[in-house]
Amino acid sequence: MPYQARIHRISAAGPDDVSGIHEAIAAGRLDPAGIVGIFGKTEGNGCVNDFTRGYATQSLGLMLRRHLPEAAADAVCLVMSGGTEGAMAPHWTIFERIEAENATGPALAVGRAHTAGLPPEHIGRLPQLRMVAEGVARALADAGIDNAADVHFVQVKCPLLTAPRIAEAQGRGQTVATPDTLKSMGLSRAASALGVGVALGEIDLEALSDSAIGTRRDVWSGRASCSAGIELRGHEIVVLGMSPRWGGPLAIDHAVMRDAVDIEPVRAALARLGLPTMGQLDAGERERLIAVLAKAEPSADGRLRGFRHTMLDDSDIASTRHARAFVCGVLAGLIGHAELYISGGAEHQGPDGGGPVALIASRMVV
Amino acid sequence: MPYQARIHRISAAGPDDVSGIHEAIAAGRLDPAGIVGIFGKTEGNGCVNDFTRGYATQSLGLMLRRHLPEAAADAVCLVMSGGTEGAMAPHWTIFERIEAENATGPALAVGRAHTAGLPPEHIGRLPQLRMVAEGVARALADAGIDNAADVHFVQVKCPLLTAPRIAEAQGRGQTVATPDTLKSMGLSRAASALGVGVALGEIDLEALSDSAIGTRRDVWSGRASCSAGIELRGHEIVVLGMSPRWGGPLAIDHAVMRDAVDIEPVRAALARLGLPTMGQLDAGERERLIAVLAKAEPSADGRLRGFRHTMLDDSDIASTRHARAFVCGVLAGLIGHAELYISGGAEHQGPDGGGPVALIASRMVV
Amino acid sequence: MPYQARIHRISAAGPDDVSGIHEAIAAGRLDPAGIVGIFGKTEGNGCVNDFTRGYATQSLGLMLRRHLPEAAADAVCLVMSGGTEGAMAPHWTIFERIEAENATGPALAVGRAHTAGLPPEHIGRLPQLRMVAEGVARALADAGIDNAADVHFVQVKCPLLTAPRIAEAQGRGQTVATPDTLKSMGLSRAASALGVGVALGEIDLEALSDSAIGTRRDVWSGRASCSAGIELRGHEIVVLGMSPRWGGPLAIDHAVMRDAVDIEPVRAALARLGLPTMGQLDAGERERLIAVLAKAEPSADGRLRGFRHTMLDDSDIASTRHARAFVCGVLAGLIGHAELYISGGAEHQGPDGGGPVALIASRMVV
Amino acid sequence: MPYQARIHRISAAGPDDVSGIHEAIAAGRLDPAGIVGIFGKTEGNGCVNDFTRGYATQSLGLMLRRHLPEAAADAVCLVMSGGTEGAMAPHWTIFERIEAENATGPALAVGRAHTAGLPPEHIGRLPQLRMVAEGVARALADAGIDNAADVHFVQVKCPLLTAPRIAEAQGRGQTVATPDTLKSMGLSRAASALGVGVALGEIDLEALSDSAIGTRRDVWSGRASCSAGIELRGHEIVVLGMSPRWGGPLAIDHAVMRDAVDIEPVRAALARLGLPTMGQLDAGERERLIAVLAKAEPSADGRLRGFRHTMLDDSDIASTRHARAFVCGVLAGLIGHAELYISGGAEHQGPDGGGPVALIASRMVV
Repeated sequence: MPYQARIHRISAAGPDDVSGIHEAIAAGRLDPAGIVGIFGKTEGNGCVNDFTRGYATQSLGLMLRRHLPEAAADAVCLVMSGGTEGAMAPHWTIFERIEAENATGPALAVGRAHTAGLPPEHIGRLPQLRMVAEGVARALADAGIDNAADVHFVQVKCPLLTAPRIAEAQGRGQTVATPDTLKSMGLSRAASALGVGVALGEIDLEALSDSAIGTRRDVWSGRASCSAGIELRGHEIVVLGMSPRWGGPLAIDHAVMRDAVDIEPVRAALARLGLPTMGQLDAGERERLIAVLAKAEPSADGRLRGFRHTMLDDSDIASTRHARAFVCGVLAGLIGHAELYISGGAEHQGPDGGGPVALIASRMVV
Repeated sequence: MPYQARIHRISAAGPDDVSGIHEAIAAGRLDPAGIVGIFGKTEGNGCVNDFTRGYATQSLGLMLRRHLPEAAADAVCLVMSGGTEGAMAPHWTIFERIEAENATGPALAVGRAHTAGLPPEHIGRLPQLRMVAEGVARALADAGIDNAADVHFVQVKCPLLTAPRIAEAQGRGQTVATPDTLKSMGLSRAASALGVGVALGEIDLEALSDSAIGTRRDVWSGRASCSAGIELRGHEIVVLGMSPRWGGPLAIDHAVMRDAVDIEPVRAALARLGLPTMGQLDAGERERLIAVLAKAEPSADGRLRGFRHTMLDDSDIASTRHARAFVCGVLAGLIGHAELYISGGAEHQGPDGGGPVALIASRMVV
Repeated sequence: MPYQARIHRISAAGPDDVSGIHEAIAAGRLDPAGIVGIFGKTEGNGCVNDFTRGYATQSLGLMLRRHLPEAAADAVCLVMSGGTEGAMAPHWTIFERIEAENATGPALAVGRAHTAGLPPEHIGRLPQLRMVAEGVARALADAGIDNAADVHFVQVKCPLLTAPRIAEAQGRGQTVATPDTLKSMGLSRAASALGVGVALGEIDLEALSDSAIGTRRDVWSGRASCSAGIELRGHEIVVLGMSPRWGGPLAIDHAVMRDAVDIEPVRAALARLGLPTMGQLDAGERERLIAVLAKAEPSADGRLRGFRHTMLDDSDIASTRHARAFVCGVLAGLIGHAELYISGGAEHQGPDGGGPVALIASRMVV
Repeated sequence: MPYQARIHRISAAGPDDVSGIHEAIAAGRLDPAGIVGIFGKTEGNGCVNDFTRGYATQSLGLMLRRHLPEAAADAVCLVMSGGTEGAMAPHWTIFERIEAENATGPALAVGRAHTAGLPPEHIGRLPQLRMVAEGVARALADAGIDNAADVHFVQVKCPLLTAPRIAEAQGRGQTVATPDTLKSMGLSRAASALGVGVALGEIDLEALSDSAIGTRRDVWSGRASCSAGIELRGHEIVVLGMSPRWGGPLAIDHAVMRDAVDIEPVRAALARLGLPTMGQLDAGERERLIAVLAKAEPSADGRLRGFRHTMLDDSDIASTRHARAFVCGVLAGLIGHAELYISGGAEHQGPDGGGPVALIASRMVV
């Protein structure tokens, strides 16, 4: 029997505010049994000591266990992305899969996969890249997407190195990619993004080596979005694309921003989704744009369109925070609000200084 | 003999980098004798302990004294605005007045005025408001603008309270508007903005009292931009508008953003300046847009278009910093670069959560 | 049958790390049924958007419910204090009450009280002060302390104003003490501290008015420690003192620092507890000093012993963060480690710029 | 004719406040012609975008040129150290050399040296180490110190890498030690500190290689203090020690703190200088302690005396800022005020997590 995807974008008053999700369940709009994953934008700093991700994960886990058997609750992919700088609104995006009467497809399809735990010595190296590529392939199968060209967004939550994990690996005579736990977040995102690119046929595995991970800025996926978190050892992968086996009003498309102000590809993608706009989407069009998922980062050369930016020299505010605030403004000016999922740290996720943007829209007036 | 305004937007590699100004003078593009004022976006935090403003002021003063007699150097209005969050590019905007062969006007007109020193007990109160209103009137006369409707931007640099100034006033048996030096920055900006509004006929002085200053969010000027600084006791005022007595290719217009993502009024102003655009200005149009001057602030109710923002609850990053980064992104998405002058703290400068935007364009291809 | 107090100081690897408490329970060193309260130093910013307090509170609540009936778990006073600046070590301090064979007292006595919910319009005003004073009296009775002079530390967790609470009060035609939610934390701590002082006979209620709360720096308690939190409507009060009805090896004393470097009163208190020291406690003495609880704040005049400090002018780092880091260093130099409970925001808690310090020591070698 | 050193510790109201120095000169207490160097603690973040160092350097340069020929003014070593966290007081320490009637020595001796510019490719590598070692030897000769054992403090101001400097070196086919400009500050301090250790005979040059610089935490100098700055290409070196050829009441000694709370070696050094103390120096003793110069850093293992610190995991506040605030508290508790020169970033400057402390005292009551 065919599937249909439902997307619920629900505002959060804090990292532990799951009341909106309870309400959606109570009102019958959301069936907990169908929840594939939950993406959260939480209001921490998005860096190492951001505890809003763990707090939200704990709060969502308690919520899910109230409605689901523990195993089913634990199978839900929880991807928390910290940092709501500028006017970005903290919120949850819930991906639900229900059965559809008939496949009116192609329509939005959602799939997921979990990988085994990754030994610390493999973080940021080719074995992680291969593990993610394999996991993405399973997620495509789970989504019923046969053609990688139909994939528009792949969210990967990946592990990072911690002092105990480094010690454990070294105790077995292994070396790690970096002794710096903050850097390991970037390397893990980098290897995961390359893994996505390989799985989607964007990147040639043969051309890559350990040394390319995190350094080859010219090699990137236009559909990967990766976040590292301390709370898992393996990977959680959510694939979003279009499939003829799915039904319902939702569709997804994506754009690749070449730099932090490159809105034209996003406008073009909106037009492809039936939301053409000069300037800013109007209120009705905004209603039909269900979710926006994007990555942001400062350009490595410290310049944007030839002018200097100060993000990389700022020792008070992390560059990822500046980039999220700015790119949120760029996209909010086009879309008309700031309840957007914009995540920082875009190694191999779009070109240097730019990033992928996925757009999910309803083809009917809501 | 008629005047012509020249605007020089020059990138700065740091608060003390005046090399680009020296080059413009050496190349004969800029005549130091004609400099009316210099606006600077400097890369500090834009708050109390932002020393980049003072460093830039000292560096610009040394530069001017190399080219001008001390009195002439000191007469130049130096308005330093701290905070280049997001991708905002640190830069100088130099306002120069030269003689024109003939007035082809109406064209961009620039005028300035200085006020006497303001006693500390008057900061943030009606006497400051009246002093600024009177100064703005003199600046209009200096600019040769007869009709307040032709004014598009008034920049006021105003004083603030410090512990010694408070003590001095109290020693004379006077009270001050607030004992909080940071708050005094806001009250001084507020009184100055209301003074601009009164001078431009936007606001009725009779309807105001001391208690309205900083509190009556419904009373605002659509053309005022005010920054408080520790380095002066009086006010420095620069008026920008259109005058038939001026010549040259430059023109100015302005828009008022109703909230932080309200780009449509800015698009309309660009169109009035001969720069109509769907989406983003192209490279040629960008060349013709010489300068963008805007104010930004978080909305007081903590919401933007119905969604929560976290700017006001963030104890790590000041809300003014979030607002500058975000609004810079909003405008940069429309304009195509981020070398923009966006200043925080917009009390009575545009509606709550929004702000004025001035646009200076060349009517000829540069 | 007489009581005995046991204090467990347990390191935390994060706001959700309760593993050390589980271990103490599993090993039989700690009986969950005897837990009166838990103080936590958590590693957030200690300001408005510090979610480590809520995360720790949720984690401790889950832990307690695993070992206790829900009502008993909810009765435990959880006082989370954010901010471990400098080298301060995140940790839990668990106050346990067990039955003793015989009262060898006077010995450390622990008592607690909860108050009813406080209407928002009473926060920071005399009704809150009276409610806290009454609650402290009940906590003294609970501790079996007859004489207020035997009290050495009173920890109060108090509510704060939020936008919805302000709206609710105004909806009933009431006014609130401040519209600024951050300020309401300070006013709630201030009213609570004065309430403690009144209950302990340090402060004369008759001499106080609403306007004195938060302003009369000359009126203070030398034994109050107050923290405001968003997670409660009423107050949780823990009293620590000496009582002849209690037994066991533990004793408590306190000192009042007159400014942020005033260590001599602390050295004197250590000597009274049998820990005389020139310089720094040695390893053996450190073992016997079970817990240190202190308050810190920047002096309002911006000076320490005649020299300027920059805590109050820093717009990047909150002054409370500077004060905790510095005072932690001052006390750690004397004591020899930094696993200390130092809390910021000391309105009426010790003199301006100083604060109370409570010391709990074992009279036997551990 | 013999020399005498005079040390002037002068409070600063801001990075540009040289008024206290002008007063000392006007009052005849300070002869500008004798100024060897000026150390400044300025109130920026002490990291990459700390412009208070440059602002102070510009302001001091203008002050010196008012009193000295340009060459003499430029010869003064200006060592600005950013970061006055906690209660640290911004101030200047001026090292003056005057002629003495007779050498009553041994007494405090001061010497300085400048090195040639260092090619960017040598920063953080052995050639820098050798250049600094050679410069320190010249500074010892300048100070009239024959025996390296009589040296108690060597301050080195060293260059760092910037994007243009890296490009210039790479343009010549050279490689640089790191592409990360912030990291280059640490490597330059590290190579400089090792150079000091070699010059003082504490470290064996033969045992070192490029790879040891910044990594061999077991190799350190107990008397080196290094700060990197963008404003120079070579090195400025100031040596402080005792020499029989100098006269006057001043003496210097030093201690090495083994960790961030290790005050006993400092107490011992105070005693050697005639300032024995239990607890805290009294007001009279404080008068006689003219200057305290120390380095601070977080321990690399994230622990202090077995307890966790969070300095290295904090993405909001740089670890150097935490360390300065905390160690300032530790030393201020012993000394009784916080107008201390405590500098962060102590690579090879004392053991991991600890650092050198130099103490300058007057042997007569001032």
